[in-house]
Amino acid sequence: MADETLFQLLHTEVVAAAYGGGRGSGDEGQRNGLTVLEGMGFRVGQGLAERLPRGALVFKEELDTIKFLCRDLWGAVFRKQTDNLRTNHQGTYILQDNNFPFLTQMAWGQQYLEEAPKFLAFTCGLLRGTLSALGIESSVTASVASLPAWTK
Amino acid sequence: MADETLFQLLHTEVVAAAYGGGRGSGDEGQRNGLTVLEGMGFRVGQGLAERLPRGALVFKEELDTIKFLCRDLWGAVFRKQTDNLRTNHQGTYILQDNNFPFLTQMAWGQQYLEEAPKFLAFTCGLLRGTLSALGIESSVTASVASLPAWTK
Repeated sequence: MADETLFQLLHTEVVAAAYGGGRGSGDEGQRNGLTVLEGMGFRVGQGLAERLPRGALVFKEELDTIKFLCRDLWGAVFRKQTDNLRTNHQGTYILQDNNFPFLTQMAWGQQYLEEAPKFLAFTCGLLRGTLSALGIESSVTASVASLPAWTK
Repeated sequence: MADETLFQLLHTEVVAAAYGGGRGSGDEGQRNGLTVLEGMGFRVGQGLAERLPRGALVFKEELDTIKFLCRDLWGAVFRKQTDNLRTNHQGTYILQDNNFPFLTQMAWGQQYLEEAPKFLAFTCGLLRGTLSALGIESSVTASVASLPAWTK
């Protein structure tokens, strides 16, 4: 049974619930939905980090912590690693995933880009929560250049 | 990283969200919360079953389908099998799990039994949704005799 899709299916339901039942309409509703999803991600990220063996929590450099997110957190959640990690060495890190699983099932097209933030909010919170439990206060935002697509 | 806890952490958030923000108070709120959770479970179960390879969907006997739930569905979701399966051979099946993961983290005590249904509703829906996608319309209910506990 495809257990790697279980988390993804539940995430889809969570997004739908955050925007369902009359909530999530209008700008304010949209912001509320994002806040709810980000908060859920934050607490899940905290929970995951708190369950790590103690040794795993000791990183010498901030960069090592970020690499841990790219490799281990991404591995646990998405069964793969991020495609790229860039930094300005002044505390800003860019994690790039060219085939982000929560977006790959969306229809392709510029008009759907507006829908993308609701599928990114949980993961932003997840990163922020994990970092918080590892002792790093952060601000995490997401941007989408284009939706994943296949060309022949 | 403890990826088997990821689903459990997200489930906890989902339960909290279904009862949060003023929802879930009073008898009606309680029922609404359960309906929301059951519905989410139903759609996740459907999604899981629809992703099964076609061969896996052909069961000769109804009992084989139920055994599939006990073994494969439980395995994918909870990383174990149910402890017991009983049937009256007239279409009623009882799946027993002596250490149901969504309940093991609750404090032990008779007074917490009232809280148990909200941690069971999603899984009831999950079973009903999976069965529905496998062509069996069902009614799934849950009961808790006692919360999992350890004695020395």
